[in-house]
Amino acid sequence: MNLQDIVENLGLSDVNQLKTVNISGLNTLADANQSEISFLDNKKYLKDLESTKAAAVLIKEEFASLVPKSTLALITDEPYLKLALASEIFAPSLIEEYGKDPIIGENTVIMPNVYLGKNVTIGKDSTIMAGSYISDNVIIGSDTIVHPNVVVYRDCKIGNSCIIHAGTIIGSDGFGFAHTKKGEHVKIYQNGNVLIEDNVEIGSNTTIDRAVFGSTIIKNGVKLDNQVQIAHNCVLGEHTIITAQVGLSGSSILGRNVVMGGQSATAGHLEIAPFTTIAARGGVTKSITEGGKTWAGFPLFEHRPWLKLQGKIAKLLK
Amino acid sequence: MNLQDIVENLGLSDVNQLKTVNISGLNTLADANQSEISFLDNKKYLKDLESTKAAAVLIKEEFASLVPKSTLALITDEPYLKLALASEIFAPSLIEEYGKDPIIGENTVIMPNVYLGKNVTIGKDSTIMAGSYISDNVIIGSDTIVHPNVVVYRDCKIGNSCIIHAGTIIGSDGFGFAHTKKGEHVKIYQNGNVLIEDNVEIGSNTTIDRAVFGSTIIKNGVKLDNQVQIAHNCVLGEHTIITAQVGLSGSSILGRNVVMGGQSATAGHLEIAPFTTIAARGGVTKSITEGGKTWAGFPLFEHRPWLKLQGKIAKLLK
Amino acid sequence: MNLQDIVENLGLSDVNQLKTVNISGLNTLADANQSEISFLDNKKYLKDLESTKAAAVLIKEEFASLVPKSTLALITDEPYLKLALASEIFAPSLIEEYGKDPIIGENTVIMPNVYLGKNVTIGKDSTIMAGSYISDNVIIGSDTIVHPNVVVYRDCKIGNSCIIHAGTIIGSDGFGFAHTKKGEHVKIYQNGNVLIEDNVEIGSNTTIDRAVFGSTIIKNGVKLDNQVQIAHNCVLGEHTIITAQVGLSGSSILGRNVVMGGQSATAGHLEIAPFTTIAARGGVTKSITEGGKTWAGFPLFEHRPWLKLQGKIAKLLK
Repeated sequence: MNLQDIVENLGLSDVNQLKTVNISGLNTLADANQSEISFLDNKKYLKDLESTKAAAVLIKEEFASLVPKSTLALITDEPYLKLALASEIFAPSLIEEYGKDPIIGENTVIMPNVYLGKNVTIGKDSTIMAGSYISDNVIIGSDTIVHPNVVVYRDCKIGNSCIIHAGTIIGSDGFGFAHTKKGEHVKIYQNGNVLIEDNVEIGSNTTIDRAVFGSTIIKNGVKLDNQVQIAHNCVLGEHTIITAQVGLSGSSILGRNVVMGGQSATAGHLEIAPFTTIAARGGVTKSITEGGKTWAGFPLFEHRPWLKLQGKIAKLLK
Repeated sequence: MNLQDIVENLGLSDVNQLKTVNISGLNTLADANQSEISFLDNKKYLKDLESTKAAAVLIKEEFASLVPKSTLALITDEPYLKLALASEIFAPSLIEEYGKDPIIGENTVIMPNVYLGKNVTIGKDSTIMAGSYISDNVIIGSDTIVHPNVVVYRDCKIGNSCIIHAGTIIGSDGFGFAHTKKGEHVKIYQNGNVLIEDNVEIGSNTTIDRAVFGSTIIKNGVKLDNQVQIAHNCVLGEHTIITAQVGLSGSSILGRNVVMGGQSATAGHLEIAPFTTIAARGGVTKSITEGGKTWAGFPLFEHRPWLKLQGKIAKLLK
Repeated sequence: MNLQDIVENLGLSDVNQLKTVNISGLNTLADANQSEISFLDNKKYLKDLESTKAAAVLIKEEFASLVPKSTLALITDEPYLKLALASEIFAPSLIEEYGKDPIIGENTVIMPNVYLGKNVTIGKDSTIMAGSYISDNVIIGSDTIVHPNVVVYRDCKIGNSCIIHAGTIIGSDGFGFAHTKKGEHVKIYQNGNVLIEDNVEIGSNTTIDRAVFGSTIIKNGVKLDNQVQIAHNCVLGEHTIITAQVGLSGSSILGRNVVMGGQSATAGHLEIAPFTTIAARGGVTKSITEGGKTWAGFPLFEHRPWLKLQGKIAKLLK
């Protein structure tokens, strides 16, 4: 879509000298390319502004002077709300009307009552069990088992030798909204996807949300238990283990071989170093930069001090 | 059903002068009308007894004298157990045998493998995706998307411009049982429904239980994330936001623009004032009457004192 | 399969004098019979070694001398990893190719889009609602309701007068892996099943994992709410009540009439005495041997001391 059209669509009036560049989508300041629009809502990302390659940036007037010369400033009081409105422009269809019939590899079994969308590709020796929904443009590898009543939303990718247990939902929308001054919430369309690499096993009734931009990524060898919640834009490193009822908030970046105990959780936008263990119920609210340690509690402590602290707390009873 | 028949069915022998009134169902003391039976099990509701309009009340002998003249006292040692038995009498059919074919609005898409019950009405420009189950008497508005493998139980209502993500269950039975002296649990049939107003988005694998009497209500503009649990008879005010893995116990009444962080929860039968924020993992056990504040922890504190308290607790380690 | 073949398959070279016994499967030291292979990985189970009836035991060299005479020691540095590899040998087919057509009792209703596997038996007056998946060898009793989009994995059994709400998954794989020295996880195939007795009600989107060996057991009269997670090899005693979002870790053994409040949880391999109540959010990490008490918190305390402790903690603020 033409930038001029987008700007008019968003009701932005202060813009001059619009480039006639064709816009392909939205992205973060750090990841946007020259055909994408970005936004600055949180000052924390000012550092990404000067090096952005975005065609244009939704931005408050006070920061407009910091926008690089090759990028156009789209000035607005509410950059995040305008981003939400723009996200709808680039949202793909719910169901593709046109496209190729599925390509199914040798010895792959598609059971009854499976829905396969347009442009679906499935490798060989895989099984898609009854009641599953494989949406448009989904790619599934070889030797992979998709148990009954699994739903894979459009554009997601599942690798080889994966097992996805029943009732699991892959690629539902991340939970993202801009807010109006009246307290209403405006959907930020989640135009990214989920990428699941090889040898991943996912339990039953787990949910993995698609990215708002880019991909939510589950790397090689990861094992997820039942009723795990992975929010948009998380990245799970190789061989990471997540037990039942764990919740990862948006943009949690876990290194390889992280272990998270039952009902533990992360706040969003943080990193956990490789080989970290979070005990059951641990609540991670800040990045863990040094790997190989075990943590517990909420607020989070290293495991041994946490145990000691619980002893001290119990003594209050005396 | 005739009151005489119900009383005999429940094995109540002490009743005289039965009215021949036709009984249409069960309800609370406060909400029962002149064709409904109510019950008094918890003294907390004695205040509702004197003003009840119920045709009859299941009640212990000691409170029988407090029953208003226009209401008949059905005396029993176990009013709650008798309520459970009576609830089965009024439980509607699991599947209606007779009824009208679905009425589907213009441009609405019903994908393959969707089950539509009797007397279903769906507005225009909506999409019901494959594998979803829309039970008898369900009404769905216009511009609404029901993603794959969603289940909507009988008698529930979903408004306009809603998005229901995959695997979500709307209207399953609330968790309510009376208990016998032997420790067995007798089901209280959940004869209410779920009402979802307009502009509501619900994440994947969320569960919203139907009311025991009346309705579980999700008001205009509410946004629910994945794996949220809403128990029977909750009411969620306009534009309230509930993030992933939150659990609301029965009859939690949330005002408008309440925000509940990940894995937070409420105990039942309480109210949360408008514009309240509950931080992640917060556990609300009492009503919050003053709006606009932020709370955290379990037991619950205001957010700043909670942070301070965590600092004090951490000092115990030294 | 012949023991000689299994040993070669696992790459075990130190074994002499192999018995020609036919091996039917794997089991724990305590439960293995003379045609099963067992393993010793954790010293905690040394007490079970001397009385084991297993045909052979995967074991480290240092403990080999403790193996009873009638049992063959299969010596390996990594008994748990070899167990994982052996578990795949005994894993049944994902989908049976051959077998009998379903046997359906009188007045039982099978709705559209239900998948019934081979050798399925369903009693009379039951209802299997649309979109449910009843896998091979599953037995379902009489007067039982399976709501839409439920999945029952192979070999599981559901009794009479049960209600299984929508989206619930019964018999998905327990979460069990052995680990290589490189940090990869090797699946322990879960070759057991789930047994659900009579009068059990299970909420929506709950998950109950099959046992690794033997059965996960839900006894008569148990009531489970929505989004409950029951891991492999749990046993829930008669009339136990588990409310929403509770997580039971593997091999949690609950006595009769246990009550677990919302979002409470257990660590694995422990027992809870009959008539125990765990308050909401309680975290049980050790066995509770004396019944009839109420517990709360994490770490867990008896309920009254826990309340008192919370009072003491709150005083730290002053």
